[in-house]
Amino acid sequence: MLSLVDLRRRIEAGSLTPDGAIRLSQEAILARDPVVRATICTDPAPAVTDHGPLAGIAVGVKDIIDTAAMPTQMGSAIYAGWQPKADAAIVMRLKSLGAVALAKTSTSPFASIDPTGTTNPFDPGHTPGGSSAGSAAAVGAGMLPLALGTQTGGSVIRPASFCGCAAVKPSFRLLPTVGVKTFSWALDTLGLFGAGVCDVAHALALIAGRPAIDLGSTAPGAPRIGLVIQDFAAAPEPEALAALDRARRAAERAGASLADLDLPPELGAAWRCHATIQDFEARQALAWEYANHRDALSALLGPQLDDARSITPADYDEARRHAHRARRVLKDLFSDFDAILTVSAPGPAPKTLASTGDARFNRLWTLMGVPCVNVPVPGDGLPMGIQVIARFGGDGRALAVAAMIEAALRA
Amino acid sequence: MLSLVDLRRRIEAGSLTPDGAIRLSQEAILARDPVVRATICTDPAPAVTDHGPLAGIAVGVKDIIDTAAMPTQMGSAIYAGWQPKADAAIVMRLKSLGAVALAKTSTSPFASIDPTGTTNPFDPGHTPGGSSAGSAAAVGAGMLPLALGTQTGGSVIRPASFCGCAAVKPSFRLLPTVGVKTFSWALDTLGLFGAGVCDVAHALALIAGRPAIDLGSTAPGAPRIGLVIQDFAAAPEPEALAALDRARRAAERAGASLADLDLPPELGAAWRCHATIQDFEARQALAWEYANHRDALSALLGPQLDDARSITPADYDEARRHAHRARRVLKDLFSDFDAILTVSAPGPAPKTLASTGDARFNRLWTLMGVPCVNVPVPGDGLPMGIQVIARFGGDGRALAVAAMIEAALRA
Repeated sequence: MLSLVDLRRRIEAGSLTPDGAIRLSQEAILARDPVVRATICTDPAPAVTDHGPLAGIAVGVKDIIDTAAMPTQMGSAIYAGWQPKADAAIVMRLKSLGAVALAKTSTSPFASIDPTGTTNPFDPGHTPGGSSAGSAAAVGAGMLPLALGTQTGGSVIRPASFCGCAAVKPSFRLLPTVGVKTFSWALDTLGLFGAGVCDVAHALALIAGRPAIDLGSTAPGAPRIGLVIQDFAAAPEPEALAALDRARRAAERAGASLADLDLPPELGAAWRCHATIQDFEARQALAWEYANHRDALSALLGPQLDDARSITPADYDEARRHAHRARRVLKDLFSDFDAILTVSAPGPAPKTLASTGDARFNRLWTLMGVPCVNVPVPGDGLPMGIQVIARFGGDGRALAVAAMIEAALRA
Repeated sequence: MLSLVDLRRRIEAGSLTPDGAIRLSQEAILARDPVVRATICTDPAPAVTDHGPLAGIAVGVKDIIDTAAMPTQMGSAIYAGWQPKADAAIVMRLKSLGAVALAKTSTSPFASIDPTGTTNPFDPGHTPGGSSAGSAAAVGAGMLPLALGTQTGGSVIRPASFCGCAAVKPSFRLLPTVGVKTFSWALDTLGLFGAGVCDVAHALALIAGRPAIDLGSTAPGAPRIGLVIQDFAAAPEPEALAALDRARRAAERAGASLADLDLPPELGAAWRCHATIQDFEARQALAWEYANHRDALSALLGPQLDDARSITPADYDEARRHAHRARRVLKDLFSDFDAILTVSAPGPAPKTLASTGDARFNRLWTLMGVPCVNVPVPGDGLPMGIQVIARFGGDGRALAVAAMIEAALRA
């Protein structure tokens, strides 16, 4: 994989130019993308600058995020060739830091759950996950050092886990979603994919303009970590539990204190409310597409929006009250724990291209708005990841604990 | 003015057809808009349906709200002729209820504070207010029975007050902002303009799909009302204080109990934070326009975004903490009061077309996310309004108290 921190070190040392760094990505795309099919289009003549702390960093932009120089097609024939007028706020921010929006990356239609044409970079018979399939696969395949995704259920953490890269889904609204196609305004959260935890931490600190998020300034000390089995969801597969156990032991070796943490019932109740909030909002957000292009909606999204018709405003308001209560309970839990450790996905990437896998271990945390980090767990076979979660606003802490576990796993 | 409730009664009684009701608006636009200049464009051949509870209702759509059948030009030359692909969620919702999006209405550039070409329907030498200038003026001039605006500071309640119509700025996120150009995602709130409080209450209940918001179901009884002078802002003009006093006495005649309410200092602190949150977000939301078209930005917006460069993420985070604290304090206040009564604007519409007036009595409530209703106060001279505010989610209560005061003022 291309490490953002490593590329930047080489650029700052003078052993690599920004142009040269962008060329590394262009060459890797030429070599890998014919099989992985992570990109939808690339900027053929990107404007590379020498200035800025992300100069030389090629970024993949999920194709529900507006770009003024490349079409934004939402993974749907309904938007074939659609050219937005403006860059999304996050794209402008990346450019202002010197980065290059090199490619649009594949997305499930409107960031829903239908699969894309992208394959898993570790085995093309397996899904890369979704909906941020292209961004996860492009980083996992070593094509790009940084990519943007969005998570409404589990669309950042799960594909990162499947594709063997690090990712952060920051606190809700830390990164601006202006110019990002909405699925659910209460849930949609921009996230970052990178080779390792230090890469996404460095990128997030710069993009958010909050240096304290970067690892240097948030040493975790001896963190108290709650080990969570989300038993309101069906059990994870043995591979996921094994990865979680390895992460637990690595954390302990690194000096963390681990304790089993049973989530109070309010959190299970909130987990069950996720779809109500998501689908009630999606039906409004995609009302034009549904009314005018129902037949062109993808195989899973169409019926999902059909079914959402039965969700009443009262259902939605009740779901939001459950979520509100759960956020308060979770906030209190974090007075006893610095971080939560749980699985990122039910198991490794399923052997299918007809599904993007299951977000059941991600939904709760998206609804809670708390920062989540995927840490790749090295091993035989397909990639596996575990998830580190901190309190709302504790993005730096989540990343610091994740980096500590990542280092201990590699030791 | 054209009353939505009255038009619907006539349509249901068979004395008016939906086509005929739309024609009333078309004729009024032909008669009044050459002077008022509230509309940017109209649909020359609107598709009128006989079905739905808003059939026959012509709606004005502020020109920062996407429409698939008419351009959306944001009040800015930068978006001259821009044709979005899809209707905004709120436009789709109105259509699904049978309403007709008849006209795009003028907006300050990107819903900021620069004036539009619209004049006050009661005196063309006076401002109609802003940023939802066209929507307020079109309803106040009797051209349309319903119009959509947005409020980030005071862009719904203030122009309604200046143009003599009723308006509701609902609880934050009650109405979906998908497809509405963002200025500040923490603040931007869709609102409705109508001839009277019962008109906007009926429309809001239908659009939000929450029948309890409508007046029939939320009789206010003998409400406890807190009379608020926002003394952190400069004093209102004598006309505004006189209107407030008339509203207070009308409320008392109608059976309400009124008490002076001094706002705790947390609310003044939050009021002072509004611009920090708004402008920090606006600089990101309009980053593409700023970077590529700085010279085409309007006279007040350009420098506003220049100055926003100095707002740090730490400033912003601190401002959000103040707002969070103030929301809790305000929530507690509403255990003693059903509603707050305060001025809608510093005074009547200023005699100028070079300013849209001052939002200083609206900002706090937008930041708090609570529902606000403008009640026109009948009198000599230019229109005046007062503002009724309820707790978050208490949209029905705010409207019921507002309707009670409106009726008592007219009696």
